[in-house]
Amino acid sequence: MSKKAGASSRGMARYLPVLDWGRSYTPDALTSDLMAAVIVTIMLIPQSLAYAILAGLPPEMGIYASIVPIILYAIFGTSRVLAVGPVAVVSLMTAAAVGRIAETGSPDYIAAAITLAFLSGLFLLALGVFRLGFLANFLSHPVIAGFITASGIIIATSQLKHILGIQASGHNLYEFSLSLFENLGDTNWVTVIVGAGSAAFLFWVRKGLNPLLIGLGLKPRPADIIARAGPVFAVALTTLLAWTFDFGARGVALVGDVPRGLPPLTMPSFSLELWTSLVGSAVLISIIGFVESVSVAQTLAARKRQRIDPDQELIGLGAANIGAAFTGGYPVTGGFARSVVNFDAGAETPAAGAYTAVGLAIASLTLTPLIAYLPVATLAATIIVAVLSLVDFSILSKTWTYAKADFIAVSVTILATLAMGVEVGVTAGVLISILIHLYKSSRPHVAEVGQVPGTEHFRNILRHEVITHDEVLTVRVDESLYFANARFLEDYIYDAITGRQDLKHVILMCPAVNAIDMSALESLEAINERLKSSGVTFHLSEVKGPVMDRLLRSHFLNELTGQVFLSQHQAMCELAGPAKSRPPRKTKPKE
Amino acid sequence: MSKKAGASSRGMARYLPVLDWGRSYTPDALTSDLMAAVIVTIMLIPQSLAYAILAGLPPEMGIYASIVPIILYAIFGTSRVLAVGPVAVVSLMTAAAVGRIAETGSPDYIAAAITLAFLSGLFLLALGVFRLGFLANFLSHPVIAGFITASGIIIATSQLKHILGIQASGHNLYEFSLSLFENLGDTNWVTVIVGAGSAAFLFWVRKGLNPLLIGLGLKPRPADIIARAGPVFAVALTTLLAWTFDFGARGVALVGDVPRGLPPLTMPSFSLELWTSLVGSAVLISIIGFVESVSVAQTLAARKRQRIDPDQELIGLGAANIGAAFTGGYPVTGGFARSVVNFDAGAETPAAGAYTAVGLAIASLTLTPLIAYLPVATLAATIIVAVLSLVDFSILSKTWTYAKADFIAVSVTILATLAMGVEVGVTAGVLISILIHLYKSSRPHVAEVGQVPGTEHFRNILRHEVITHDEVLTVRVDESLYFANARFLEDYIYDAITGRQDLKHVILMCPAVNAIDMSALESLEAINERLKSSGVTFHLSEVKGPVMDRLLRSHFLNELTGQVFLSQHQAMCELAGPAKSRPPRKTKPKE
Repeated sequence: MSKKAGASSRGMARYLPVLDWGRSYTPDALTSDLMAAVIVTIMLIPQSLAYAILAGLPPEMGIYASIVPIILYAIFGTSRVLAVGPVAVVSLMTAAAVGRIAETGSPDYIAAAITLAFLSGLFLLALGVFRLGFLANFLSHPVIAGFITASGIIIATSQLKHILGIQASGHNLYEFSLSLFENLGDTNWVTVIVGAGSAAFLFWVRKGLNPLLIGLGLKPRPADIIARAGPVFAVALTTLLAWTFDFGARGVALVGDVPRGLPPLTMPSFSLELWTSLVGSAVLISIIGFVESVSVAQTLAARKRQRIDPDQELIGLGAANIGAAFTGGYPVTGGFARSVVNFDAGAETPAAGAYTAVGLAIASLTLTPLIAYLPVATLAATIIVAVLSLVDFSILSKTWTYAKADFIAVSVTILATLAMGVEVGVTAGVLISILIHLYKSSRPHVAEVGQVPGTEHFRNILRHEVITHDEVLTVRVDESLYFANARFLEDYIYDAITGRQDLKHVILMCPAVNAIDMSALESLEAINERLKSSGVTFHLSEVKGPVMDRLLRSHFLNELTGQVFLSQHQAMCELAGPAKSRPPRKTKPKE
Repeated sequence: MSKKAGASSRGMARYLPVLDWGRSYTPDALTSDLMAAVIVTIMLIPQSLAYAILAGLPPEMGIYASIVPIILYAIFGTSRVLAVGPVAVVSLMTAAAVGRIAETGSPDYIAAAITLAFLSGLFLLALGVFRLGFLANFLSHPVIAGFITASGIIIATSQLKHILGIQASGHNLYEFSLSLFENLGDTNWVTVIVGAGSAAFLFWVRKGLNPLLIGLGLKPRPADIIARAGPVFAVALTTLLAWTFDFGARGVALVGDVPRGLPPLTMPSFSLELWTSLVGSAVLISIIGFVESVSVAQTLAARKRQRIDPDQELIGLGAANIGAAFTGGYPVTGGFARSVVNFDAGAETPAAGAYTAVGLAIASLTLTPLIAYLPVATLAATIIVAVLSLVDFSILSKTWTYAKADFIAVSVTILATLAMGVEVGVTAGVLISILIHLYKSSRPHVAEVGQVPGTEHFRNILRHEVITHDEVLTVRVDESLYFANARFLEDYIYDAITGRQDLKHVILMCPAVNAIDMSALESLEAINERLKSSGVTFHLSEVKGPVMDRLLRSHFLNELTGQVFLSQHQAMCELAGPAKSRPPRKTKPKE
């Protein structure tokens, strides 16, 4: 830690990154930020409404959840361009958590969603303050990829009922699909035309509009931004059609009356019972939201050579969620789509987020009467098109080729998410990753090594042509030694010495041993004793500094029959004489 | 696997070790085994009665649990001298598990204990058949040591009520002690004299008799065996006193009528409800029993240069427990005291166990009328003296000096066991060990390294005087790379390159990297991209064979801006030229 002058203000800036960028805010940055804010505001209106509906909440809560949280993140967060608000996966997880407690859309349901945001905020803050952000690392990349893909499928399926204008419900994908199928007879064809038409339009916008605009002479960035505003066109057009042709009378579900005004002041519940039933979900939502947000923030920061601080991000997201809880919102996090638009639109500082908040506040004061005629099917179409871009099964083939363990983790995550829902899915993914890791490290790679002729290098006798000696057995263990693999090493050495009558020395080569815990120390003592009673001395080589420091604090080195050598080469010089003067015991070809 | 003739009979012998030693059974071995069996039988009678009482079961169940299980273990087990039967810790765990379901001593209680043995046997068999014995390794040595110590305290305390002749109960040590204290007024002084007298006698036998006998000219082994028969003298003497002076009429609790006869045929319950409530306890009892048994078996096998096969041990113990369930027993495992006596008495093959079983069967046919006058306080005294030798707090100071992580695990285990009972205690111990391990491996040791002058060795710049170069940064990571530490490495490298303007190459030295999972691969790709955009090339060195094989299956090596070097020395020769020709960047003294 620096003790120079200015350290304390730097310390403050660490917890309030706004002090850092706020000081050097230029008129140029102001212009860029304002531009970006206008674009993001327009895009956020339909997106926020849609995700609130996905979460089973009144549409205006999506707008509310985008206003105060974005400002709080701007003050406490470290990413310059992250846009915080409702996102698809977190909305789905909110629906799953709150749906267990109350009927969708009821006042209890809304109160639970607000409380969930509060708990999630508290948990994120606590992780940030105690610098426990590393916990999120236990959610491996493949598990996240699998989880997001499975969630995308669940979300897209859940929106089909709005596209068809029918009812459907179920606790998992199978039940829901069945219920959807049963009610297929109730399909409202006007709704289908609006929903499927919007979806087709949005797919075309995503794939075809961009090249078309570039073909017409637009530069890639504005072309991209216009293409991303596709949902706004769809919303405006279908709202106009619904108003003109009175779709409401034709059985098309419309968003309906949305209260006009700024976000209301709300209070989370402090019922212990409610907290108990929500706390598990809050933890899962926080971690998933954090991981998603950090990966978006890191990707965008890398493009501008900026760094983000994951522990401070926890504080930023925690503040945003607590803000959401007090202003009629629900759990939020940094969203991919909105952040990318913000970035592409040229946002330079988090102030762009604050201006977006102002834009959304104006919208919620003025535009709500127009939203009443917006068909729900249009919003469902925007959700489907957005989440289908998240669905990516390539992680299955990638992990299959690269590492079967990761493949198992991904498959379990996808299957558990689809079959048993988001919470079971993500928990299963984390647990299976940890179990596989523990299993693998409990069976470390152990190899007998010999000297590569003419060098000081020692390699696996099964992979390289090497020189070995009858009197010396060198075993290299490629893992830290700890309780789960200590007995494995004992077994390996006892097996390796069986039948080697000329053996005088066993050397354990430790270049990959970063730690030896108490259980492993006891195993080394047992090996030493066992070898001693057979008249074989036991040596260590290439023991790392920190491991050696620790061994010096135990009795092991006093009892060790052999020595500890700095290098394996030195050990062989001393124990076996110069390699050349002796014939190799065996020399196997490379495998 | 060998495909020669005889392989199939070896294969059979693997699952039926009796085929191995049975074939070469000699008259000499028969004599030794018979001698040992007589000694063990005499010692087992009081011990078996005592542990059944500790488990809250009728005393004869302790004898029954020693007959058929010991024979089944002799057939299926791999240790030549392990004696299977009731042991202290497993008896305590049985009482804890069954006590939750039924009132102590009631028919339901007995039925649950029998079912517990059955479930435990099934679980052990399953682990053995699927070769999952490695799972027991997750119970680290310090956790076991702490658990056994805490269990010893609980057992000794629980027996105080029998020594005092009063009632006491409680769900944990605190409640029990309080209840004991409240009922202190009911103390029966004759009972105290019998109990405390027996305990004092047994302590003296343990410490003082052995030297005395040796002083009288006996050889150490017979002296040791006589000393171990101490409980038999105490039992005989107090039984005689109780009969002579009619202790029963003076309020001394006696064992009372014990049915005379061979073990009865019993059936475990197949109630799903009972199974559900016992299965967790069965798993814990199995694992604790297995670990205890294997460590006894390994210790004794090592003294005779024999090997035991942990997976086959599971099958042996599984068969023993299933046998116990069908013959009026309760969960059993290999006991330390009985096995050591068996070993010291000269048992040569598992046949000694079978003869012991015959001896016990004869005892249960003939001696039971005598047992009626045996004071329970004498049995309590034998238990207290036996378990106090298990109590050993030195593990706390040992781990404190050697490794704080192990110290935390031991402390948590001891405290949780004392405060919340055996099941919570052992579970907490396992979980905390795994959590600490995951935490540590998520923050691997990463060091910047330089060349030791005049050698091909590269060491930590903070610990050794080494040569480094401005254009080359070499980072050695001392752990396999996986999801939990992948981001840590990214952060480390990004921090390390900050402000190093002359940097042209970053080398990741991987001698300790035994695996790179999908998440870590993605992190390496991210590092490569990030360095590329700063004009720095990224290299790997000393990548192990299996890791390299896997990297070759990914796209990473195509995208890598630098190379993969077989040795770090080679990397430096190529990237920085010969070390001598350049001035060292910095040379720090050894720390």
